Amino acid sequence: MTETLLSSASKEVRIGFDRPFVIIGERINPTGRKILAEEMSKGDFSRVEADAIAQVEAGAHMLDVNAGIPLADEPAILAEAVKLVQSVTDVPLSIDSSIVAALESGLSVYQGKALVNSVTGEEERLELVLPLVAKYGAAVVAISNDETGISEDPDQRFAVAKKIVERAADYGIPREDIVVDPLVMPIGAINSAGKQVMHIVRRLREELKVNTTCGGSNVSFGLPNRNGINSAFLTMAIASGMTSAITSPLQAEVIQAVMGADVMMGHDPDCANWIRKYREPSADGETRGRRGSKRRRPA
Amino acid sequence: MTETLLSSASKEVRIGFDRPFVIIGERINPTGRKILAEEMSKGDFSRVEADAIAQVEAGAHMLDVNAGIPLADEPAILAEAVKLVQSVTDVPLSIDSSIVAALESGLSVYQGKALVNSVTGEEERLELVLPLVAKYGAAVVAISNDETGISEDPDQRFAVAKKIVERAADYGIPREDIVVDPLVMPIGAINSAGKQVMHIVRRLREELKVNTTCGGSNVSFGLPNRNGINSAFLTMAIASGMTSAITSPLQAEVIQAVMGADVMMGHDPDCANWIRKYREPSADGETRGRRGSKRRRPA
Repeated sequence: MTETLLSSASKEVRIGFDRPFVIIGERINPTGRKILAEEMSKGDFSRVEADAIAQVEAGAHMLDVNAGIPLADEPAILAEAVKLVQSVTDVPLSIDSSIVAALESGLSVYQGKALVNSVTGEEERLELVLPLVAKYGAAVVAISNDETGISEDPDQRFAVAKKIVERAADYGIPREDIVVDPLVMPIGAINSAGKQVMHIVRRLREELKVNTTCGGSNVSFGLPNRNGINSAFLTMAIASGMTSAITSPLQAEVIQAVMGADVMMGHDPDCANWIRKYREPSADGETRGRRGSKRRRPA
Repeated sequence: MTETLLSSASKEVRIGFDRPFVIIGERINPTGRKILAEEMSKGDFSRVEADAIAQVEAGAHMLDVNAGIPLADEPAILAEAVKLVQSVTDVPLSIDSSIVAALESGLSVYQGKALVNSVTGEEERLELVLPLVAKYGAAVVAISNDETGISEDPDQRFAVAKKIVERAADYGIPREDIVVDPLVMPIGAINSAGKQVMHIVRRLREELKVNTTCGGSNVSFGLPNRNGINSAFLTMAIASGMTSAITSPLQAEVIQAVMGADVMMGHDPDCANWIRKYREPSADGETRGRRGSKRRRPA
């Protein structure tokens, strides 16, 4: 029963085989968000703050923080963003960069045990990122591609994940601190992408005994009604044993799919979370138990 | 690769392991529909006709027809309903009754190869229903309970299904003409109901090599936002190998869940059905390809 423990200064989250699915909010990422990129590079973190709070209110259990802005001082900006997000929310963070100095900068100011996003199976990345993960006692997202690119064969991607787990062990990082992203292909391009994910997630869970994560929306690239495809994908991935995803909790359909899948997996005892979220409004129109929408009457 | 062939006078439908999921519309059923029951017992089938057309337009591949009205002449009413539905739609039908004389009456007027709904593992039912199925060359829904009731142990329910398949063989009915309903428990009462279904559906497919069906909404009994739970359930059941369900195609969320699951299973090549259903309206506001909502301009 593998469990990956992540923490902030005051809160723990466990990603695990027999636990509710963990949603890692993806919104704090300037890639493709021009206004956010401009604001962050100028030191304006107001949108980061708003995105952090909104995602946690919508149901995110963790938040991914990325500061990838071309030509900007990414290490400094990522550290600022991490500090800011930790000051306004209490969920653990995923510190997300392709620049090792930025990962270190984010880790150096982080309070708790972070998730480093990410390492690949490329030799150079393994040698740079794994020591950092070990030094800060963090967990890490392991992306199953290497120098040869992304294999279309899921068993080849499994082999890359296995290599990363073995190399991490050399650095004293246990398998429970590795969360594998098996890489989900767009199903509009590769018809077998869904079955591939179910196959590799089962192997990762049963043979390699590691937790798993994924980008929750790559699969629907190029298709209409992407939330519909993303919901079907997440539900099926959870049925196959996927334990977390980096996705947008601001999509009500995504939250519903994940919460419904938790119910079906037996990970929401007495359907308590489901009932709290979706029970009917009472007669006076008050919606009880919806986070962020409960109206209180003055005493 | 088990396939169950059903037909009307002019159309074939195949339920199969490597085929899109088959939706059997559940609406033509007076149980709990007081107005429909009154109308049907008076010989007014206008609502049956409207329900038949609406369900096929919404995406049903087959229709279930039930005429279970207390104190009414069910054999006569069921035969009338079957004839009427076959006159306004071309999909194959599931002829649904707990009264053997009504099943026979429906079968006697049916054009094509019908699905008989249903037989259980009870000795008396096996001896009455299986000869009828054989006589009319029909297929049959096999419900996995017997004289001892519904076992809470899914492996016990599997054993009942196996017994029905064996008994059917004695009557010359091949396993591909048996569609097993493994009986889905309400998840609000039995927390493991979802995992039970995934387990038994896999066994039915891999060991008994039969197609499967279920009531698509029992699972959410007593819970709020039932469509949300039903969607998660259907998606997970399809991921486990379920091949059909008796459910309401009039719920847009149910259709979306099934079509999304077909995409993820690789059963919608090039996502063609998905794209046809969900593509964006064109600039002039016309929604292309949505059945029943396409507006045509006068020539």
